[in-house]
Amino acid sequence: MVTLDLNLIAAHLEGLEETIIHKLIDRAQFAPNPNAYRPGESGFRGAGGKSLFDMRIRYQEEMDAAFARYLVPEERPMHRDLPPPRREAQLSPTPLEIDDVDRVNVTPQIVSGYLAFLPRLCDVEPEDDGQHGSSVEHDVLAIQAIARRVHYGALYVAESKYRGASELFARLLAAGDREAILRNITRPEVEERILLRVSQKVDYVQATINTAVRRRIDHEVVLDLYRDLIIPLTKEGELRYLFNRRPTGNSGSRSGTP
Amino acid sequence: MVTLDLNLIAAHLEGLEETIIHKLIDRAQFAPNPNAYRPGESGFRGAGGKSLFDMRIRYQEEMDAAFARYLVPEERPMHRDLPPPRREAQLSPTPLEIDDVDRVNVTPQIVSGYLAFLPRLCDVEPEDDGQHGSSVEHDVLAIQAIARRVHYGALYVAESKYRGASELFARLLAAGDREAILRNITRPEVEERILLRVSQKVDYVQATINTAVRRRIDHEVVLDLYRDLIIPLTKEGELRYLFNRRPTGNSGSRSGTP
Repeated sequence: MVTLDLNLIAAHLEGLEETIIHKLIDRAQFAPNPNAYRPGESGFRGAGGKSLFDMRIRYQEEMDAAFARYLVPEERPMHRDLPPPRREAQLSPTPLEIDDVDRVNVTPQIVSGYLAFLPRLCDVEPEDDGQHGSSVEHDVLAIQAIARRVHYGALYVAESKYRGASELFARLLAAGDREAILRNITRPEVEERILLRVSQKVDYVQATINTAVRRRIDHEVVLDLYRDLIIPLTKEGELRYLFNRRPTGNSGSRSGTP
Repeated sequence: MVTLDLNLIAAHLEGLEETIIHKLIDRAQFAPNPNAYRPGESGFRGAGGKSLFDMRIRYQEEMDAAFARYLVPEERPMHRDLPPPRREAQLSPTPLEIDDVDRVNVTPQIVSGYLAFLPRLCDVEPEDDGQHGSSVEHDVLAIQAIARRVHYGALYVAESKYRGASELFARLLAAGDREAILRNITRPEVEERILLRVSQKVDYVQATINTAVRRRIDHEVVLDLYRDLIIPLTKEGELRYLFNRRPTGNSGSRSGTP
């Protein structure tokens, strides 16, 4: 059973930060390579208007679907028409109260936000280093790490907060008061702490790199990604979760209350 | 054109160290999960005696083959029977003098060495955290990063050293004197410097992690991986390259001398 203790959820989200930072730094070792994102230039026969990036995320998600990745609530794909799992996987019971976890899926927004942010992450000359395959491979890994963090936060933080003030949230949901719900799931001091911590980690992780052989990324870039994409989309996911949550009466009936 | 300047090759290999370290640390966030490596327990229908790890590396390499990864000399796969590329990729010309780069392929040895080393990397309780899919996903990424480093070193260092002393190497190769060749490609002081640097990086990269939420790995484990697997297999690859190198007379005829 996944915990609903808000401190433990926050700890898990904190532990995912280094994974996201590692994957961004690894992507930043390659040039921006804009041709890898250009529609119709994937180099794949019969791929029509797709870019190489489009092809990579499609292939990756089809493979991951075969491995049953998307049975895990916080693993949400970009595509909705993926093949069924080819593997029987044992999943932990979940305390979530939602019938279709894909209603919380904000991965398409993560992808478009990440791609818009990429020129700042890979701000180097020359613009093209020929490493298109490696670039999109690392993009997809970074996007998956970000999506895991966003959806884990959205699902478990929202359920935890709901249970901590279920009467309040039930009332606001019944009234459809999105603004009031957003105020009640926002903790500015927590967000500030995350931004400061992530910035520091970006610098510490790169403290000893030899910049003659490896590119250093600016902590401001990752800070902005957290502030402008990861945190807002986590809250957007929380809102979607709450608006799609089963009525309170059913709480705990399907998967047990912790 | 890829360089044959030994200092630039060494710099590239140094720049790959953080990528390997990142991927090992990310894998170490999961338990050892021995069931993910047990033959016949992949959970895939019709997968016979394969483990989940076996299935993952097969799927990954089939996907990467479609993306033309294995046209790049330093990207050597575990499997020899992969489908042809589905993508037309432009490759840089190479200064290598070998007809079949797969004769240098030591990825099967990297895989078995990595798997033997895994229990030390993931030395945590409980032994199984249920995250089998994530574990093997990260294994494959770590193996690919290691294989890229090993084969890049094997191919380009060997060609560079050959050109630096082509008469000596031609004579030793003609005599089949493997021991003497090994002596002439070994630089103990360079190996010591790599081991020290990698150890320090493992600690610096993890300097600020919160061990309440994220597992720290011991630099000794990565040092041993370099000393016992990465460096010896790079030299094994160098030997294979030299013994399969085209005769000196052809040098530069196919791809130009830098």
